[in-house]
Amino acid sequence: MSDGRKRVVIENVKPEIGGGAFPVKRVIGEKMKVEADIFSDGHDSLSARLLYKKSGGRTWKEAPMAHIENDRWRGEFAARETGNYLYTLAGWVNHFATWQRDLQKKYDAGQDIHVDILIGIGLIKEAAERAPEKERAVFDESIHLLSQEKEREKIILHALSEELRGVMDRYPDMRDATRYGKELPVAVERLKALFSTWYEMFPRSCSREPGRHGTFQDCEAVLPEIQRMGFDVLYLPPIHPIGKTNRKGKNNTLQVTEHDVGSPWAIGSAEGGHKAVHSGLGTLEDFRRLVGKAKEYGMEVAMDIALQCSPDHPYVKEHPQWFKWRPDGSIQYAENPPKKYEDILPLNFETEDWEGLWNEIRAVFLFWIENGIRIFMVDNPHTKPFRFWNWLITGIKAEYPEVIFLAEAFTRPKVMYRLAKAGFTQSYTYFTWRNTKYEIREYINELTTTDAREFFRPNFWPNTPDILPEHLQYGGRNAFMMRLVLAATLSSSYGIYGPAFELLVNEAVQGKEEYLNSEKYELKNWDWDREGNLKDFIARINTIRRENPALQTTYTIRHYNIDNDRILAYGKNTEDYENIILIAVNLDPFHTHSGWITVPIRELGIDPLQPYLVHDLIGDDKYIWQGERNYIEINPNTSPACIFRIRKRLKRETDFDYFM
Amino acid sequence: MSDGRKRVVIENVKPEIGGGAFPVKRVIGEKMKVEADIFSDGHDSLSARLLYKKSGGRTWKEAPMAHIENDRWRGEFAARETGNYLYTLAGWVNHFATWQRDLQKKYDAGQDIHVDILIGIGLIKEAAERAPEKERAVFDESIHLLSQEKEREKIILHALSEELRGVMDRYPDMRDATRYGKELPVAVERLKALFSTWYEMFPRSCSREPGRHGTFQDCEAVLPEIQRMGFDVLYLPPIHPIGKTNRKGKNNTLQVTEHDVGSPWAIGSAEGGHKAVHSGLGTLEDFRRLVGKAKEYGMEVAMDIALQCSPDHPYVKEHPQWFKWRPDGSIQYAENPPKKYEDILPLNFETEDWEGLWNEIRAVFLFWIENGIRIFMVDNPHTKPFRFWNWLITGIKAEYPEVIFLAEAFTRPKVMYRLAKAGFTQSYTYFTWRNTKYEIREYINELTTTDAREFFRPNFWPNTPDILPEHLQYGGRNAFMMRLVLAATLSSSYGIYGPAFELLVNEAVQGKEEYLNSEKYELKNWDWDREGNLKDFIARINTIRRENPALQTTYTIRHYNIDNDRILAYGKNTEDYENIILIAVNLDPFHTHSGWITVPIRELGIDPLQPYLVHDLIGDDKYIWQGERNYIEINPNTSPACIFRIRKRLKRETDFDYFM
Repeated sequence: MSDGRKRVVIENVKPEIGGGAFPVKRVIGEKMKVEADIFSDGHDSLSARLLYKKSGGRTWKEAPMAHIENDRWRGEFAARETGNYLYTLAGWVNHFATWQRDLQKKYDAGQDIHVDILIGIGLIKEAAERAPEKERAVFDESIHLLSQEKEREKIILHALSEELRGVMDRYPDMRDATRYGKELPVAVERLKALFSTWYEMFPRSCSREPGRHGTFQDCEAVLPEIQRMGFDVLYLPPIHPIGKTNRKGKNNTLQVTEHDVGSPWAIGSAEGGHKAVHSGLGTLEDFRRLVGKAKEYGMEVAMDIALQCSPDHPYVKEHPQWFKWRPDGSIQYAENPPKKYEDILPLNFETEDWEGLWNEIRAVFLFWIENGIRIFMVDNPHTKPFRFWNWLITGIKAEYPEVIFLAEAFTRPKVMYRLAKAGFTQSYTYFTWRNTKYEIREYINELTTTDAREFFRPNFWPNTPDILPEHLQYGGRNAFMMRLVLAATLSSSYGIYGPAFELLVNEAVQGKEEYLNSEKYELKNWDWDREGNLKDFIARINTIRRENPALQTTYTIRHYNIDNDRILAYGKNTEDYENIILIAVNLDPFHTHSGWITVPIRELGIDPLQPYLVHDLIGDDKYIWQGERNYIEINPNTSPACIFRIRKRLKRETDFDYFM
Repeated sequence: MSDGRKRVVIENVKPEIGGGAFPVKRVIGEKMKVEADIFSDGHDSLSARLLYKKSGGRTWKEAPMAHIENDRWRGEFAARETGNYLYTLAGWVNHFATWQRDLQKKYDAGQDIHVDILIGIGLIKEAAERAPEKERAVFDESIHLLSQEKEREKIILHALSEELRGVMDRYPDMRDATRYGKELPVAVERLKALFSTWYEMFPRSCSREPGRHGTFQDCEAVLPEIQRMGFDVLYLPPIHPIGKTNRKGKNNTLQVTEHDVGSPWAIGSAEGGHKAVHSGLGTLEDFRRLVGKAKEYGMEVAMDIALQCSPDHPYVKEHPQWFKWRPDGSIQYAENPPKKYEDILPLNFETEDWEGLWNEIRAVFLFWIENGIRIFMVDNPHTKPFRFWNWLITGIKAEYPEVIFLAEAFTRPKVMYRLAKAGFTQSYTYFTWRNTKYEIREYINELTTTDAREFFRPNFWPNTPDILPEHLQYGGRNAFMMRLVLAATLSSSYGIYGPAFELLVNEAVQGKEEYLNSEKYELKNWDWDREGNLKDFIARINTIRRENPALQTTYTIRHYNIDNDRILAYGKNTEDYENIILIAVNLDPFHTHSGWITVPIRELGIDPLQPYLVHDLIGDDKYIWQGERNYIEINPNTSPACIFRIRKRLKRETDFDYFM
């Protein structure tokens, strides 16, 4: 029977992930909107506040909450530092607000309000007692004014004033306030967690001399070109020594020659394991130099961490307890019956020595952090326990809040979401296989309008070393361009596996979505300037992303209607509508399509009677539109997409440059 | 770093109300289906169990859970006693199931399974150690069988057998099982909590002598008639002494004569308060006799508890601290500015003496419980704190689990739901104002397909003493019949305010949904047998409800398509499909409507090529239908609705009585 007078209820708080077990994710400065059902019994007016602070901090900051409708309230804040924040809510019955509301009604109905004014004076006196000494004068003045019985007009004007309400709201009666029962976590990360542009490449294929194994130094030579294309993350597959035992040959075959280089994911040899560098690529020193050079070009190097071992990995001898052993004395290799992956041994997370294993993996991450790495791409995290990831990522981020973890998990939806909850900054997605208008819209809605938007940051990839999707196999150059624009404008983080992507590599293993002669099993010597390459187009798209803040978040996306099912239209804008982007993509790489698009001009603040300028940032064409419905036509052979910037202030000048 | 090997995740458990803060509601024997996302990292097979027990009980009962799809699992149980139950979940990696699954694949691919069999034997040995001594023989036999190296066929047959799986599943390796972190509550009530038929009547209007104040004895005389109509709850407005100060006259006016009887909701006079009986109705002894007589007629008496006082209530003098006092020394009456209700004083739940107030109210409920009452209808619970209700109802039900509380709250949706969460057994609803097909379907969906279905039990009322809805004012007899069928078949609990309902009283205060010359302010002498009354029709509908278990729950309802927006069609069935009811209601009281209805025959188990019988239980007409689409036509002047029972086993006999 405690707190019997706490009448306000706070429930159905959003966001609240897993009942508060997992943090909501934000980057610095990104709005954190919090909603809740807040109500009490009866008909009194209420007030509510959103409280937030850095985790471990002593005092709560306050943001006001406002009633939206149907007992739903909303408030917001934005964090200014990386690290963990907490938020909670408070709500209380506001007797003074109730009094003002009712007084207004009584006064309007011509009723005697003499006693009501006395009640109000009582409320003001109580507030005065809550206020510090130096503020009391304001209250005394109000009380004096309301006590001038003859000045009825003056009394009512003051009693109902916003000014008096404001003074009273500074010292509310919160004795019986309800505090929401939980303090909910927010993980605040740096901007790149939300807005990043990834380029994946195999260092060993960077040599320009046919047949020679590429090195970190060769990588340095291609940095300017990658920078010119506009990428800010350079992501390398595993750089560790590769096992010899059961090594796979070209095209993942069992026929191996001594020239075969093996898969970088078969990690570990006599040379070393996860903390070592493949000698063919260079030394640890060379690697650190590459990391430094990349930085000069505005790029961070992301490392691939694959928690698995070749049979030659030092762990096998040093920590046999981390592997499964079969009754015949052999070691358990990876399998997906009836398929066998004999060049790869999984780590056994059910080992009695799981603490030893966890600590060693943590040591691997810390080793590379000490060597300058702040972005990790984690290979198949879904085959390692969620608890492990939560422990690992939480621990590392406590010390290095700037570290970014990308989950390379193509698996079942709930497993992918759980990895994000466990702490992964970004995640691979199903974008790679979402091609039709319906599929893309449904998937975007799932990512941006459900709880997932609060903890799952998508990273869209049109291709990866593991996946050459069917539409890239058959759709030609236009399909590559179309998928690039989709990835780059639907999601604020995206990446490509190059140079296979910009060189339009589209030969697949028969009947599969795998690259024929995949780089995973052999060296390549790419002609980086091959005719028809997409480098300029990619550079253009990434420039548009950099110059338009609307494209630097995923979550503001809205679908637009257009009367053609082969054209996908959507928009993003900054909260102040200074930057409005409208994207229209022809999903058919073979034919020209056209249609009438519906622009939500009311929401965008466009006068229905005034023309407005739409500027296609890809082709640099400008069009004058008016009203809601406008015509577009997209010939995929010119460009399979338009990225329009909408500029509102058309003043009927002839010079378009006038428009901002 | 504890529990590092617990790989299974259990999340998104449904039902789980307010994170487990509030119980799910069920009646004895009612299925409790529990779903959760259950998955682990990797690709191992999992097992899961639903655990439940009576609160305070020592051992958990187990129900199996099965995978549905997309990592969603489901299990169910039904409670056998009233009171509080708890449920939770457990999930674990089932290495033996994984082994069987993989062995099958390897065997099918013709691979050597020698080592795999050895691994299986190891798993069986481990299980044997978990089993009690007397069960070990079964395991030894399996091990022996699998060790007969030459009997390859026998080995594989046994290794993959359901039988072996069954034995192993009895002693699973649950060392690293994940237990869901919460024990979630279920409040189990008696059947009437779910299925009840209410008749509200003013005892003071039961006299058959014009002008004489009716008594409890007069009520006894009408019991047979109410029983004949099929009601099982007789609900009486407040029976307490009525205040004299500021008493309201007829039609809620301020002109009062000494003959005016006042509103029963202005509770308390010199005669007594909430524990006293209005002397005009009889004595407490008379009341107890009425309760006993009602029982003989199969009815429970429900009491109206209105927590408010007339200015003459003894509390005002005995507990002045329970009221608000104004600065001029007067007591605060109820108001909704600019309206004033000077005959009613609200209790002030913000009083310093809230504990005294709470305890006294509890004493009021207990007083009536001791006098034989087990059903309370609580007037305007939404103007008293939720915490109070939760404390009161939880406390009373701990001692008297059979007590039913109906919340007479017509207020905002979230407030109504919160009252249900706080403990109210049933609740008033917006049904009274839901008239069109769209409105009704949307509302039914909200009540039966959202979380509300787990804790909010609707009670549908076509009219109440406070509300004569517009469609009853204008729609005539057909509208009364139509609304009755809707209430009685959409919801398993419903009620009418009679005899105003069955006598088709439809005169309202001009422009309002209030009864003209309302019984709330004056005595009535009803002609209970007035021509055109609906007593037979009501009796028929209530008989149908009693005879058809499908109608005894609200939550199985499904909408059926029909190509006429004036006809609402829906169905309910028992889980075994033995009782299938299809209801079609013509929502237009003035015109005949017809249309083609789509019957989901596949789901109902009806052969598309075989005819089936539909028997209209209202008109006793029988029709032979076939396939999905069938024609219906409803003339509201005959009956505004059909309640079809579908009988499947049509054998083309001429005698329909053959059909069960």
